[in-house]
Amino acid sequence: MKAKKASETLAITTKVVLPNDTNTLGNLFGGQLLAWMDVIASVSAHRHCRRVVVTASVNNVSFKEPIEHSSIVTLEAKVSRAFSSSMEVFVDVFVEDQVSGQKRKSNEAIYTFVAVDQNGGPIQVPELIPETKEEKHRYMGALRRKQLSLILAGKMDPSEATELKALFFKEGEA
Amino acid sequence: MKAKKASETLAITTKVVLPNDTNTLGNLFGGQLLAWMDVIASVSAHRHCRRVVVTASVNNVSFKEPIEHSSIVTLEAKVSRAFSSSMEVFVDVFVEDQVSGQKRKSNEAIYTFVAVDQNGGPIQVPELIPETKEEKHRYMGALRRKQLSLILAGKMDPSEATELKALFFKEGEA
Amino acid sequence: MKAKKASETLAITTKVVLPNDTNTLGNLFGGQLLAWMDVIASVSAHRHCRRVVVTASVNNVSFKEPIEHSSIVTLEAKVSRAFSSSMEVFVDVFVEDQVSGQKRKSNEAIYTFVAVDQNGGPIQVPELIPETKEEKHRYMGALRRKQLSLILAGKMDPSEATELKALFFKEGEA
Amino acid sequence: MKAKKASETLAITTKVVLPNDTNTLGNLFGGQLLAWMDVIASVSAHRHCRRVVVTASVNNVSFKEPIEHSSIVTLEAKVSRAFSSSMEVFVDVFVEDQVSGQKRKSNEAIYTFVAVDQNGGPIQVPELIPETKEEKHRYMGALRRKQLSLILAGKMDPSEATELKALFFKEGEA
Amino acid sequence: MKAKKASETLAITTKVVLPNDTNTLGNLFGGQLLAWMDVIASVSAHRHCRRVVVTASVNNVSFKEPIEHSSIVTLEAKVSRAFSSSMEVFVDVFVEDQVSGQKRKSNEAIYTFVAVDQNGGPIQVPELIPETKEEKHRYMGALRRKQLSLILAGKMDPSEATELKALFFKEGEA
Amino acid sequence: MKAKKASETLAITTKVVLPNDTNTLGNLFGGQLLAWMDVIASVSAHRHCRRVVVTASVNNVSFKEPIEHSSIVTLEAKVSRAFSSSMEVFVDVFVEDQVSGQKRKSNEAIYTFVAVDQNGGPIQVPELIPETKEEKHRYMGALRRKQLSLILAGKMDPSEATELKALFFKEGEA
Repeated sequence: MKAKKASETLAITTKVVLPNDTNTLGNLFGGQLLAWMDVIASVSAHRHCRRVVVTASVNNVSFKEPIEHSSIVTLEAKVSRAFSSSMEVFVDVFVEDQVSGQKRKSNEAIYTFVAVDQNGGPIQVPELIPETKEEKHRYMGALRRKQLSLILAGKMDPSEATELKALFFKEGEA
Repeated sequence: MKAKKASETLAITTKVVLPNDTNTLGNLFGGQLLAWMDVIASVSAHRHCRRVVVTASVNNVSFKEPIEHSSIVTLEAKVSRAFSSSMEVFVDVFVEDQVSGQKRKSNEAIYTFVAVDQNGGPIQVPELIPETKEEKHRYMGALRRKQLSLILAGKMDPSEATELKALFFKEGEA
Repeated sequence: MKAKKASETLAITTKVVLPNDTNTLGNLFGGQLLAWMDVIASVSAHRHCRRVVVTASVNNVSFKEPIEHSSIVTLEAKVSRAFSSSMEVFVDVFVEDQVSGQKRKSNEAIYTFVAVDQNGGPIQVPELIPETKEEKHRYMGALRRKQLSLILAGKMDPSEATELKALFFKEGEA
Repeated sequence: MKAKKASETLAITTKVVLPNDTNTLGNLFGGQLLAWMDVIASVSAHRHCRRVVVTASVNNVSFKEPIEHSSIVTLEAKVSRAFSSSMEVFVDVFVEDQVSGQKRKSNEAIYTFVAVDQNGGPIQVPELIPETKEEKHRYMGALRRKQLSLILAGKMDPSEATELKALFFKEGEA
Repeated sequence: MKAKKASETLAITTKVVLPNDTNTLGNLFGGQLLAWMDVIASVSAHRHCRRVVVTASVNNVSFKEPIEHSSIVTLEAKVSRAFSSSMEVFVDVFVEDQVSGQKRKSNEAIYTFVAVDQNGGPIQVPELIPETKEEKHRYMGALRRKQLSLILAGKMDPSEATELKALFFKEGEA
Repeated sequence: MKAKKASETLAITTKVVLPNDTNTLGNLFGGQLLAWMDVIASVSAHRHCRRVVVTASVNNVSFKEPIEHSSIVTLEAKVSRAFSSSMEVFVDVFVEDQVSGQKRKSNEAIYTFVAVDQNGGPIQVPELIPETKEEKHRYMGALRRKQLSLILAGKMDPSEATELKALFFKEGEA
């Protein structure tokens, strides 16, 4: 199974915020954005493994600033790391200024997908090769996030989570 | 501002999975469930503070087993803890067996909402009073999750996250 | 086939009124509410018989007061009586005051469902046991409503509709 | 205010049943049809009075036979009678045989609308002039249905419902 | 295969413009109207041939004036000419004045459909018989439009497009 | 008003075909694709002029091969030429092979948009600078298409359509 470059998994979609996507204040609903992110992230994961993929978990989604009705919103999804049958995908969301056309980043989210066969059983996916500085940074962080999620789910002993532990102690501390 | 009991914030919704909610395997899309959870969680947060609320972040969403087309899905949302202007909300998802009517838990998610005024500025919310064992457990965990999210966002020094640190060290270890 | 209590058939759903659910005056469309009521009523009927159910008729739906955009609307459905293969379901609709949180009843409707097999043929359903005062009141009325609908459809001779006739004559009149 | 002919209020719409409109058996959901009927009935009522109209009640909706996925469904709505500020509208639903093109009637429903001003207050509507035999038949029945609904709502003494009472007694009986 | 009259292929649908159908200016989106026209045009083509039909091309759609939120829009589709397995369909769009009820024509479009068997292969359709003056005019134009489309697609030598060529030269010119 | 390069107007969106987007044969509806193309084309036109844009006309849309349920579809829109207040936009549609990931072009369409002010009146847009061979080819063709549409609308005398006329006559012919 041939490893793939992160850049080969890039998936882009552009949306216009319609009235039904908005809340009382006239801004994009969090829930609608979550659904949009899920679809484009699944396309990215599919491009990595060319199999049916299903959402396994979602984390680190933050909504920093409101996105107004009729905004143009662009979502970019890219696989950050592949484990045996799962893939971590980052989704970056950008909003375009109506007048200047400047894009500002408004959201970020981390989705995990699992590749499955027709019975829904997990199947092996290719490895991911990060190339740019950001791709490498996210690739490194993926392991720490995986450890954290295993600990929180009670499936890993915290003392084994070497990568994660390092977060809490500056060099030589513990 | 009078504190409220967790039980007063309970919000329930029941859905039937329609064709358009399903993926290639005929199971409920993760993205659709994320959107449904966001709406019912926002109702729960609104019941706590009686103000307009907007999604601030989403975490710990896991999708353990597929939910089939035409399943009856029930979502229960309850505020787990209130901070100054934010509220952490747990959403528990149950699927009903078509024949026996038995409900099994299929998903769980943690959403955070912020109460805002008409200009979108944050405003104070009441405190939350947990009563049941599960409500107290989630109330305690909320602080640890808040510390973790502040650290991951680079807004807190790990050494100050006393509650969280305890996770990594059994008594007397460090 | 074991009889079931009315309380076992309760189905609840909570909705937020979105822009596309509203008419020119900015209030919830009657048609959208009818569709929501149908879904939750079918869940209630399904909970009674655990079979596929299809809508057979709708009656007595009244829309007393407008429901505004972004209102929180709760629908509660409960089987009121079971006949051989059909079930009468009451749906009560409540709207929540944004500030006080007080719920006021805004609508009521009566749906009838038939339990069917995979070919769409009608199949037997369990009997219903009413317990509360309101459940008993609705259980009694169901027979009268069934007679009325049979008469209006020309399938029953009015003189046989003993229950219904009583409506028109105070004691001893005819 | 000039009276209008029933034929001037005719409103027609043709729909194709899509996957999301169908239930587990692959047939059109009752709830979806109720929503479609409400929209076209409101167009008919609007054509009668040229004002904003809101749904007041729904009755006598029966679902006799299943309508399959990708069927072509035609709904015809026509005002059957106008009272001071309300209009009773009949909706007839026809399904078209895919091969022969023959239309068969599959459903019928009676909606009532009220004409309102911008504050939602009721306003006067023109009278309706029935012309065909069916229009006259429905026009006559409208009064009986209005009496019945007033009685059921406890707003009319059954002994005053002359028209309706006649239903229960063959000539000279009471 | 028996030829059919144009009038037998008429398909009508009436829509109310909802918030989600509108753009920033509060007017009906072109894209939504294109989708509505496609559905009703496919019903018209289906009525001509009683087979599954798929959209082959769209042309000459013009959007002359904005259609406002909550307008009542009526689409009328009629086959203008049938070729071996394809049918050209005209869609005329009318908007109804809220107060006077006057209908004004707001759009026109030309869709082409192909009749297909269950494998998607093209199959023969009946001929069309135009009767009214407008039906005959559109029937004649259909050939010219077909030539034009074949030329633009590089599938016909312009010198053979006799009908079309006539457009560019008044009598005796070339 | 500074001219813009065609490449600055590129807008991309990626969609997954859901059940409700499909017809009886399980393939993407033409009408749904038309709506998707309209939205992304409007984003491209907006990127050119940074004003509100409304659809003015649609032409040359062809549907060559069916697109199956759950396909990944990518739409790329780019302005091909700007006239005083209008912009011609090409939309190219690609479908991705599920296994190989190869993209094949499945559709093409030409939309025209007009830039408008808040009252819907037309306003000036910048000129477009084509750079690649394909951009230049489409830029040249735009004038011919504009002439053709003016002639068909009876707004231009065919003898003045120099560019278009050339199509029908090889060198020196007329």
